[in-house]
Amino acid sequence: MQTPKALFFDVFGTLVDWRTSIAREAEAILKPLGHSLDWIAFADAWRDEYQPAMDEIRSGRLPFCKLDVLHRRNLERILPGFKIAGLPEDTMRNLNLAWHRLDAWPDSAPGLARLKKQCRIAPVSNGNISLMVDLARRNGFPWDAILGSEIAGDFKPKPRVYLAACEALDLPPGDCMMVAAHSSDLASAARSGLRTGHIARPDEHGPGKGEAAPAVPVDVFGSNLEDLAGKLGL
Amino acid sequence: MQTPKALFFDVFGTLVDWRTSIAREAEAILKPLGHSLDWIAFADAWRDEYQPAMDEIRSGRLPFCKLDVLHRRNLERILPGFKIAGLPEDTMRNLNLAWHRLDAWPDSAPGLARLKKQCRIAPVSNGNISLMVDLARRNGFPWDAILGSEIAGDFKPKPRVYLAACEALDLPPGDCMMVAAHSSDLASAARSGLRTGHIARPDEHGPGKGEAAPAVPVDVFGSNLEDLAGKLGL
Repeated sequence: MQTPKALFFDVFGTLVDWRTSIAREAEAILKPLGHSLDWIAFADAWRDEYQPAMDEIRSGRLPFCKLDVLHRRNLERILPGFKIAGLPEDTMRNLNLAWHRLDAWPDSAPGLARLKKQCRIAPVSNGNISLMVDLARRNGFPWDAILGSEIAGDFKPKPRVYLAACEALDLPPGDCMMVAAHSSDLASAARSGLRTGHIARPDEHGPGKGEAAPAVPVDVFGSNLEDLAGKLGL
Repeated sequence: MQTPKALFFDVFGTLVDWRTSIAREAEAILKPLGHSLDWIAFADAWRDEYQPAMDEIRSGRLPFCKLDVLHRRNLERILPGFKIAGLPEDTMRNLNLAWHRLDAWPDSAPGLARLKKQCRIAPVSNGNISLMVDLARRNGFPWDAILGSEIAGDFKPKPRVYLAACEALDLPPGDCMMVAAHSSDLASAARSGLRTGHIARPDEHGPGKGEAAPAVPVDVFGSNLEDLAGKLGL
């Protein structure tokens, strides 16, 4: 297989461990205020609102907005279920920015640095630009550019998001590879003509509760980013 | 002065020496085809079409397009004046991509690396994303994100370009500083509420034919990026 000219990356789950990071951030902010709860369940509940919130925009029922705005709406939606009310505005803002402070899986930064030597690399995430910048600065992701939902004005898996990324780099989809730990993301990218690479993140939703292998045909499959780089000959 | 949270950079002339780079690229491509001409005059002629071409879009007479497209139109416009006709399409494409192969002034890459430690850094250029990515990879510019004309859908000095960059990073204009070697760019950024930093590039248009000092009030002024970093306490 010819080396792709650009590699596009899903971020939440694929490059960063949102689940334990959000649990840690929520505990750090809410426990000193006297709240005690299952922090992992809190992270899962917040993430459970993710796809339904984007559906409102993908369907055209609401205009596009940054994922930060959806995260805030989703936070307000889940707090009553954890019997939390009346948080000060600055606490709400800080808690919402927990998504800007997620930690990477250990192979993500070294794997990206290795892949960047021969390929252009960019996130094609549903996260907004400022969120991607903060995650990159925190974790040392050496992006060439921040692509994804905000430059496309829509959310994955809408074809526009993948195609806007290809167009931004002046590349036909066949010269680009979408890399993700989620088969649904890769299936959508493939339908838009991109090549696909799967990364195993078997513990994304808890031990053994992630995709250990792709559930759809992909062009290449790696146990982590370094393994993927090797299989691409990079 | 409080440290800006983000520094936005003009690129052509401010970070890269477009004039001698375009002359070199044009000579490398056209001389083997038997053309002999004043290569610096060729670079100047090409650049002279830059502002008029963008004016067509800034005025609303033409819809937005990537700067690569305008560079191509401008190239076709100047070739007859140099008595060049009938270049093959692949030569035309390669020549147009000379703008992706500009070399940086010596202080640009180390200066950006130093400034990035405490500030988010991004180009806010009229160049398109792929052009900015290629210049960054060639010259080692460690951008946090590629902002500028393509995400704004318009060209500087329209206010939208500066404001779209601030919005992408969730920052009020007063927390952002535009850095450029061109007083007109800085005057426009200041009108949109950004702070401003001037870099001297006295030789941009030939020896002694560049801005050695700002012609408008600015917040900070440096003889180069390293000097600017020092004056910002960074």
